[in-house]
Amino acid sequence: MVSTSSTTGKVGGRRRSTASVPDLVSRAREGDPRAVARLISLVEDASPLLREVMAALAPYTGHAQIVGITGSPGVGKSTSTSALVSELRKHGKRVGVLAVDPSSPFSGGALLGDRVRMQDHALDRDVYIRSMASRGHLGGLAWTTPQALRVLDAAGCDVILIETVGVGQSEVEIAGLADTTMVLLAPGMGDGIQAAKAGILEIGDLYVVNKADRDGADQVRRDLRSMLALADRSEGAWKPPIVKTVAQRSEGLDEVVEQIDQHYAWLRSSGELEKRRTRRARDEIEAIAVTALRERWGDVHGRSELDDLAASVAAGKSDPYAAADELLDAFTD
Amino acid sequence: MVSTSSTTGKVGGRRRSTASVPDLVSRAREGDPRAVARLISLVEDASPLLREVMAALAPYTGHAQIVGITGSPGVGKSTSTSALVSELRKHGKRVGVLAVDPSSPFSGGALLGDRVRMQDHALDRDVYIRSMASRGHLGGLAWTTPQALRVLDAAGCDVILIETVGVGQSEVEIAGLADTTMVLLAPGMGDGIQAAKAGILEIGDLYVVNKADRDGADQVRRDLRSMLALADRSEGAWKPPIVKTVAQRSEGLDEVVEQIDQHYAWLRSSGELEKRRTRRARDEIEAIAVTALRERWGDVHGRSELDDLAASVAAGKSDPYAAADELLDAFTD
Repeated sequence: MVSTSSTTGKVGGRRRSTASVPDLVSRAREGDPRAVARLISLVEDASPLLREVMAALAPYTGHAQIVGITGSPGVGKSTSTSALVSELRKHGKRVGVLAVDPSSPFSGGALLGDRVRMQDHALDRDVYIRSMASRGHLGGLAWTTPQALRVLDAAGCDVILIETVGVGQSEVEIAGLADTTMVLLAPGMGDGIQAAKAGILEIGDLYVVNKADRDGADQVRRDLRSMLALADRSEGAWKPPIVKTVAQRSEGLDEVVEQIDQHYAWLRSSGELEKRRTRRARDEIEAIAVTALRERWGDVHGRSELDDLAASVAAGKSDPYAAADELLDAFTD
Repeated sequence: MVSTSSTTGKVGGRRRSTASVPDLVSRAREGDPRAVARLISLVEDASPLLREVMAALAPYTGHAQIVGITGSPGVGKSTSTSALVSELRKHGKRVGVLAVDPSSPFSGGALLGDRVRMQDHALDRDVYIRSMASRGHLGGLAWTTPQALRVLDAAGCDVILIETVGVGQSEVEIAGLADTTMVLLAPGMGDGIQAAKAGILEIGDLYVVNKADRDGADQVRRDLRSMLALADRSEGAWKPPIVKTVAQRSEGLDEVVEQIDQHYAWLRSSGELEKRRTRRARDEIEAIAVTALRERWGDVHGRSELDDLAASVAAGKSDPYAAADELLDAFTD
């Protein structure tokens, strides 16, 4: 059990002011960006206070529409995200942005040079932007992102954009986290093959062909349309629209916002929103429970039972199934 | 509990002959490739017999050196793997090859066209080659690969090569599974940036500059050497060598085998082998225990307790930590 609710920062860094969790939460709810930042830092640091923070936030969650933005490097994700933020602001929405860097656990990830574009919105108090680079710590995206989303949601964001870098596994994870997944493509990038390979044709709720002023944009749209036509969709299912944009000149973003709104309306009326959110909560609960168990397994009876079992399996004296049984038995006793 | 140990294949497919697990294991130990294939299929299908299979194999494991082979697409991984198999055969080694396709859970993964090169070894009974494409099923690589390795190890392979396709996360996973990780590079592929990005400079025990007859091979070696020189290695630590090869003409493979041998000798003498294997067993036990728990959580008291908890969190009535506590309490009662 956690006995203190002080949120004092770490020794060594700049010492942060002490504030109670209820105080931080109420300041975040009033839109204080420093309180939001502090709460997300508690998430990234896997603070023991998280438990208290999440309990305090729970009643205020469920309001924000979560939009995942994904696509191959070079399609213009950052520019599109920035332009989309501007468009959403025109509609009076409060916007949160989580830029997620799925870097390897080793490289640490600092290749987000064009994150600076986001500085356009730096002075807007109704836009909250956060770059999350802490992959690997306790499960990466799977662990920290849902909790950071809860913070932004409770802080009153109407729309939260999650932007991911790169291709592959991270896109699939994003699709699991978002209410609406927006897949970006651009002409001249061999996206046809890339798209099929990464499976992004199965996760998009909305496709955006960016750089639509370039040669080949119509071809990308045609290819996309014929590939999407092959999908086996049931009656009443959402048909992902394809929108053309030139994000650099903010062209087509009104249409993107319109389609995001329509998708949200469909999610609500079809019952899909509740289904997606329940599934997401399920994954989150499981991840927390599994992490709690791993911590206990690592330190049973003062020493690590799991280490002993692992040594025995490594030596061929036991097999992993028998060892897993022993581990579970030791825990449920 | 499993009450039968028949290994009859699925209805619908070609009906396989029924064989008991002990029978299959003893045939695999004698080098019968069909028995090995059948055991790996049991792994891929997550057969309920796995528990019995792994118990029967355990006493025969720990003999094989596991070599991970990784690198960006186009560096010549398949050709190098094939040439390395030939070289290892010259040294009288029994060789296993697991070709792992880290495809997305959606696309299913069938881009392994050049796997046919492996056909060179198809008639050699001391070479066992298997392509594993079943990502996502129950945790992908993390779940099936260690068990397939156990099968090949118990079947008497001296060296098992794991070849992975693509870059990124899968390389890190491979490094966790292998005793020796071999990173392939080639000139003219922008590997400098790629390498740093994917973090492969931190996982290699051995670096191979393939296509060394091409322009720029020496430059790749020089870049690599200066980057490796920056690494902070403790006294007695392994210094990853850099070997040049032309795999297509089988040049330099003798040196690769020599370095793989030296690394294995160092692993043994330094105690690092035991450490790596214990860590691997630990991960494997955890994965099995967690999967067992997830199955139980999904179906407590005849209906899914976890689903109810998830619905309550999604509705903002509870938070994920409180729900995880409830889940663990329900389980330990």
